[in-house]
Amino acid sequence: MLKLNSFTVTDEKTHPTQVMRRRATLSHKYELFYRDPLNPVQAQDAWITDASGRKYLDAYNNVVSVGHGNRRVIDAMTNQAKMICTHTRYVNDELCRLSERLTGKNEGNNEWRSIFTCSGSEANDLAMRVAMQFTGGNGFIVTDHAYHGLTALTQAITTSMTGYLELSNRLGLEIATIPSPVGKNEGNSFIDGLQTAINDMHSRGIRLAAGIFDSFFTSDGLGLTPKGFLDDAVRLLHDNGALYIADEVQPGFARSGSYFWGFQTHGADPDIITMGKPMGNGYPMAAIMFKALLDDYIMDSYFNTFGGNNVAVAVGHAVLDEIEERNLLENAHIQGEKILSELEQLKESCVNISSVRGSGMSIAVDVVTNDGAPNADGAIRIVEAMKQRGVIISTSGVSGNTLKIRPLLIYTNEDTNFLIDQAQSAVRTVFS
Amino acid sequence: MLKLNSFTVTDEKTHPTQVMRRRATLSHKYELFYRDPLNPVQAQDAWITDASGRKYLDAYNNVVSVGHGNRRVIDAMTNQAKMICTHTRYVNDELCRLSERLTGKNEGNNEWRSIFTCSGSEANDLAMRVAMQFTGGNGFIVTDHAYHGLTALTQAITTSMTGYLELSNRLGLEIATIPSPVGKNEGNSFIDGLQTAINDMHSRGIRLAAGIFDSFFTSDGLGLTPKGFLDDAVRLLHDNGALYIADEVQPGFARSGSYFWGFQTHGADPDIITMGKPMGNGYPMAAIMFKALLDDYIMDSYFNTFGGNNVAVAVGHAVLDEIEERNLLENAHIQGEKILSELEQLKESCVNISSVRGSGMSIAVDVVTNDGAPNADGAIRIVEAMKQRGVIISTSGVSGNTLKIRPLLIYTNEDTNFLIDQAQSAVRTVFS
Repeated sequence: MLKLNSFTVTDEKTHPTQVMRRRATLSHKYELFYRDPLNPVQAQDAWITDASGRKYLDAYNNVVSVGHGNRRVIDAMTNQAKMICTHTRYVNDELCRLSERLTGKNEGNNEWRSIFTCSGSEANDLAMRVAMQFTGGNGFIVTDHAYHGLTALTQAITTSMTGYLELSNRLGLEIATIPSPVGKNEGNSFIDGLQTAINDMHSRGIRLAAGIFDSFFTSDGLGLTPKGFLDDAVRLLHDNGALYIADEVQPGFARSGSYFWGFQTHGADPDIITMGKPMGNGYPMAAIMFKALLDDYIMDSYFNTFGGNNVAVAVGHAVLDEIEERNLLENAHIQGEKILSELEQLKESCVNISSVRGSGMSIAVDVVTNDGAPNADGAIRIVEAMKQRGVIISTSGVSGNTLKIRPLLIYTNEDTNFLIDQAQSAVRTVFS
Repeated sequence: MLKLNSFTVTDEKTHPTQVMRRRATLSHKYELFYRDPLNPVQAQDAWITDASGRKYLDAYNNVVSVGHGNRRVIDAMTNQAKMICTHTRYVNDELCRLSERLTGKNEGNNEWRSIFTCSGSEANDLAMRVAMQFTGGNGFIVTDHAYHGLTALTQAITTSMTGYLELSNRLGLEIATIPSPVGKNEGNSFIDGLQTAINDMHSRGIRLAAGIFDSFFTSDGLGLTPKGFLDDAVRLLHDNGALYIADEVQPGFARSGSYFWGFQTHGADPDIITMGKPMGNGYPMAAIMFKALLDDYIMDSYFNTFGGNNVAVAVGHAVLDEIEERNLLENAHIQGEKILSELEQLKESCVNISSVRGSGMSIAVDVVTNDGAPNADGAIRIVEAMKQRGVIISTSGVSGNTLKIRPLLIYTNEDTNFLIDQAQSAVRTVFS
């Protein structure tokens, strides 16, 4: 069962016609959100409208981070599609310019190179292979509720899903896990967990390939403090001959409100950076950037049918233009701080909220019982209560008791206030 | 070195500014077509225009099969993007309807289910895992110059690239290969090759998972005859407890001119069908369809961030509408037969062409020396001569001496005549 972000499975009883149609033709392994699933038909900026005309503020979807129906992105997509859409085996200066813009977001003296893919999974899959080729190792260190993708290789290190251990054994990978560094200053123990994992690998005679971490530990429940703990961890990885793969699929693209990439909040030095979700604001695109010396350890040649096609390139530029010209990093910081401080106050008044943490538009709230134990049921009730109030959020974390709140980068003051008002109302009602 | 479809690597000497810019920011494992690379800036229907204003007939790109700049597809994409683009965890009847249309293309009594992905690689990667889970085996049978994708798992069975054996060993896969069944009626020996591969697996105590074949053996150089050889092979696979994965990423979507899927030309009975490239006419999308009983052998739950998003669904319908309403299956047959018969005549007049074969808009021409030996250099010279004459084709096959001619499904009589005229001229000039 994927605890990550599927908090309920709908069946025929709750939504007969459409759910039965799904079950007759789609894999039953597809899940639906909510007891009474959402049927969204239109969306603009931060708001989704369902088939009944009801509007919902989107505080969950982390792909459309520059806004649903973003006209600059759609125009870029349409105009480029009308001109030409082909692949990377022909000359395309705009492809190079996009790579230059993205690698330029990471300051430093290293030369970086890029490969464009369709999905974050493809990017992480390639990153893992490069790390294995470069180090000669097959040992990976991850956190214990991580999500890194759905190809065989990336699922084998996705500890938030069952079956990863069987899969990693089958594929000859060795996985060591570190307790999720979530909660206030839990990062302090991260370095100890990493040392233990490295010792474990060494004692078993396993050569390390890489530590791969979502820089914000999003699926683990959001681990952010103390600042710098990841930098210390990376130095320890490097001292032990392992690479550091920064999985920026979720924390990247200004979500932190402080830096373009999540790892920059720690001053950490990645060898490989993978990205995806918000990169095309919904257009399927992703990429991997790596230090130039790793280029020799990629397969003999690389071609991706859709990755880096002209439309993806045009869309990628438009998303960066939106972030830069509309100062969305700053907006994510301002709105995020306001939400965070209001939720902190809510926590002070409610025994069932034990922790509020966040950075920019990544916010986590831990829900507990009156005795302070993880309360996954309470978290789901808040998610449903928020839906009734017209706000879409979700849950995550090892115990499933963490509210996952991911506002879009383009939130207005009104959006932010609406989110806060409904969160206060929902928490008070659920725990009244 | 990927012989599959990269017949030359360009360096600074031939195209200094743009190639050096690429090398400074993109992976050096990216390749460019042609000694003097193409710089395409606009395309409509079957024609590409480069930066100098020169026009080229596209007889290579098998993604945009309903035409460059197809307005129905672009309108569907734009209109849906303006409405909403979100994911499969919400209700979406159009997603179900697309699955119904696709599974309906394969007649028979089986119930089929679908999962949507971003790329053919993701689809094949998942298909391989399902086969392993269902059979408990790790043995795969492929042809000896196959291409099945670029994730770790799919690259491990991509015998057309170096390193697949090392990778398959590392991942605990067992691979047996069958000689590519290309050329006239080479399929006759395919069943013997398959029996040998199965015997080899058995003698090594390996349990079979699947045979996975591109139904047209595209990367092997195109193997089509005799009709039915694949059906016999599938029965042998089934008798030995293995699944048959039909890789329809290249032969699917009416390319054959005879059936929607390539395997239907053989009456073969696949357990899993994977698809991609032309499915969105350039929009990144792909899928896997499988017999319902296999659904239990997919990981616990499946979610793909971009796969099956609303825009992909709208685009997928538009591509099917184009194929159906414009009778593109029939057009592929008519134009393909004409090209084939003219190239057959060309062969009769030229000792350096040893074989012409094809089905619909998949056509292969083997180039040989005066002594009848494979002539990869001659094939490349024809590709370059075709480019000089304004036609884009490529090479493929085990020896790299097969011309890969893949006209778009929307060719007009004029397009077809232009292709034929230039092919005659190019061959005569190269071998004068």
